[in-house]
Amino acid sequence: MELLEKRILKDGKVGAGNVLKVDSFLNHQIDVPFLSELGKEFYRLFKDCGITKVLTIEASGIGIACLTAAHFGVPVVFAKKTHTNNIFADVYTSSVYSYTHQKTYDIVVSKQFLHADDRVLIIDDFLAKGSALLALLSLIKDAGATVVGAGIVIEKAYQNGGQIVRDTGVRVESLARIASMTEEGGVVFC
Amino acid sequence: MELLEKRILKDGKVGAGNVLKVDSFLNHQIDVPFLSELGKEFYRLFKDCGITKVLTIEASGIGIACLTAAHFGVPVVFAKKTHTNNIFADVYTSSVYSYTHQKTYDIVVSKQFLHADDRVLIIDDFLAKGSALLALLSLIKDAGATVVGAGIVIEKAYQNGGQIVRDTGVRVESLARIASMTEEGGVVFC
Repeated sequence: MELLEKRILKDGKVGAGNVLKVDSFLNHQIDVPFLSELGKEFYRLFKDCGITKVLTIEASGIGIACLTAAHFGVPVVFAKKTHTNNIFADVYTSSVYSYTHQKTYDIVVSKQFLHADDRVLIIDDFLAKGSALLALLSLIKDAGATVVGAGIVIEKAYQNGGQIVRDTGVRVESLARIASMTEEGGVVFC
Repeated sequence: MELLEKRILKDGKVGAGNVLKVDSFLNHQIDVPFLSELGKEFYRLFKDCGITKVLTIEASGIGIACLTAAHFGVPVVFAKKTHTNNIFADVYTSSVYSYTHQKTYDIVVSKQFLHADDRVLIIDDFLAKGSALLALLSLIKDAGATVVGAGIVIEKAYQNGGQIVRDTGVRVESLARIASMTEEGGVVFC
């Protein structure tokens, strides 16, 4: 999506350890009118899929998920991160390994909010190695619900998460796919 | 706001320890079209105030903040919770005492995203003892920005946070104000 690629080139910053900082518009400050345009693009891509619910993960997925769901007129459910290992009977649970923080945490969704008749669109800000996305897919499977696809704002296509998830048969639509990036060379898109 | 009071009476659950659970529409599942209506009400209340930015706190404030900011056409900045005590030069920092979790945590906002010429509307889901709201006000003060007011979805008016903040001269608009609530008696509004 050209609008997004231009914005990443303009405002994104490549930091140490191959980190792409887009916190001026995506995940600290949220450019709401701009993210609403991204949400409109997700709507265009998935509008004929009978989506009943948008699923994301706290905290940085919530903004883009809400601004996408507004176009569909459906609710958002956000998985909560938990640092306890207690597995309660009334939640679906899955584990995410964070490469950034180098630790595993659990995510939970109340069983009240994911049902077998739901058709779920996952929305998230980033896709790299796919750990968070696979964990969300696991929650949906546990609920017996249908995964319609995943809408990702920025995919680091030089990491293998997107391939792993697409290989399971899940439709993944990323609005920007980064082929490579360095502090010196900037960002190159696929 | 009658629409919200009706929804709380219909879907809210009073649990042990005077907890009001509204996670079916506000802070786990997010009823996006409904919260957009609440956002429209905040817009009606603050539309003539020259707001340049909406400030909230992760995670449960982000949804209502985005769906409010969409009506104003301004960005959201969400304060991030941090469990480290490191104070970096490039962030504004403040402390919040969580009565729910009985511990203190720091919140941070990058100095890039709050400026002296900003006119800030704070949006949050709950106001009880006011610890989070006072911490957000402190961040705005540190930035030299102007507080236009605070828009709260649900205020527990039997706790003193609202009074404390109003006594500092800040305009607080709560869409539902709870006078009392018990597991037996349900919720009574002011």
